[in-house]
Amino acid sequence: MNTDIKSFPVPTLRRLPTYLRFLRKLAETDREFVSCTHIARDLRLDPTQVRKDLEITGITGRPRIGYSVPELVTAIESFLGWNNNRDAFLVGAGSLGAALIGYKAFREYGLHIVAAFDSDEAKIGRTIRDIEVLPSFKIPELAERMHIHIGIITAPAEAAQDITDLLVFGGIKAIWNFAPANIVVPEGVIVENVMLSSSLAVLTARLTEAQRVGK
Amino acid sequence: MNTDIKSFPVPTLRRLPTYLRFLRKLAETDREFVSCTHIARDLRLDPTQVRKDLEITGITGRPRIGYSVPELVTAIESFLGWNNNRDAFLVGAGSLGAALIGYKAFREYGLHIVAAFDSDEAKIGRTIRDIEVLPSFKIPELAERMHIHIGIITAPAEAAQDITDLLVFGGIKAIWNFAPANIVVPEGVIVENVMLSSSLAVLTARLTEAQRVGK
Repeated sequence: MNTDIKSFPVPTLRRLPTYLRFLRKLAETDREFVSCTHIARDLRLDPTQVRKDLEITGITGRPRIGYSVPELVTAIESFLGWNNNRDAFLVGAGSLGAALIGYKAFREYGLHIVAAFDSDEAKIGRTIRDIEVLPSFKIPELAERMHIHIGIITAPAEAAQDITDLLVFGGIKAIWNFAPANIVVPEGVIVENVMLSSSLAVLTARLTEAQRVGK
Repeated sequence: MNTDIKSFPVPTLRRLPTYLRFLRKLAETDREFVSCTHIARDLRLDPTQVRKDLEITGITGRPRIGYSVPELVTAIESFLGWNNNRDAFLVGAGSLGAALIGYKAFREYGLHIVAAFDSDEAKIGRTIRDIEVLPSFKIPELAERMHIHIGIITAPAEAAQDITDLLVFGGIKAIWNFAPANIVVPEGVIVENVMLSSSLAVLTARLTEAQRVGK
């Protein structure tokens, strides 16, 4: 994944969902307070790092009492923008796109896929979990009319830039790109890449190396 | 994604699939040679970085001629271990698991999912694209017997550690973890995490920030 966030450290942002998941579970047990040490121990992290990470949300723990669990949950949710539902368009209704539409965990993250698009005639008009697949050329008009800010690209690499242009033209501000391609966007549009092939490359290169050494 | 590779720089490893994709396309046009500058321009990268990245594969370009395209393709594939098929087990036959089973691009990466597992009675016995879903308790025996080295976890967070233990017990050497959980493995087992929630956190935190600033 590839980002150039300016204000907040990316490693901290990337850890926040882990804290949130842990704290939501704790909240279900009606626990009121939790310490840095407790969080750190359960998540196998360093307590100092946990404290620094959580400071980013504006919440500080009280000595010997710790953090209020519900306050901290709310603070992280609001920091991430996961406290209100965010509508998103998904473009590329293949198997990965369908999986993301059906991925229940997104609801916990406040992500709501409201429409899917594809340029393949065979896919247009189909329904994936109650979401109809619309033709891609409708993206700009609908994104503008529905005030959509997030676009998810799950199309093949070749189509990624054209889709990006359609999304940007419709006023999309943030693109979550699963296509194995680097996309170009105007300044001010946020891109976060999920490069499965890059992740697999790290895994298999290390495995290949380990097996070479082991021989 | 989270790794601690020792020998090779992770950013280079993560870029190799991009080079490979580009070079394979070039090879289809029967082009014999390509320069660093050409690769860099087309992929919008820095030529010096491209040269350094490609050195890792052991291939060096010749002055004024550049790289032999087929040689470079072979070198990258062999470096990544993508030149021969690698069999993998997938555990967690939900929507994400099914998507990965159906993800055509994996074939280009030499990844071959040979069996899927789940502990949910309702899923066991079903078939996803000709792959039967087997009960999870069979993982160690089958992994050992079939000499499987790669395990892919697409199960919920709560199940991730138990699955990891089963995979490791069966002799799995590398785990590609899509569950939103940190898993613990013995030394020598490679883990590469694809944390979708972390990636989304970066995207939405930046969007939330941009919208706050923009107001």
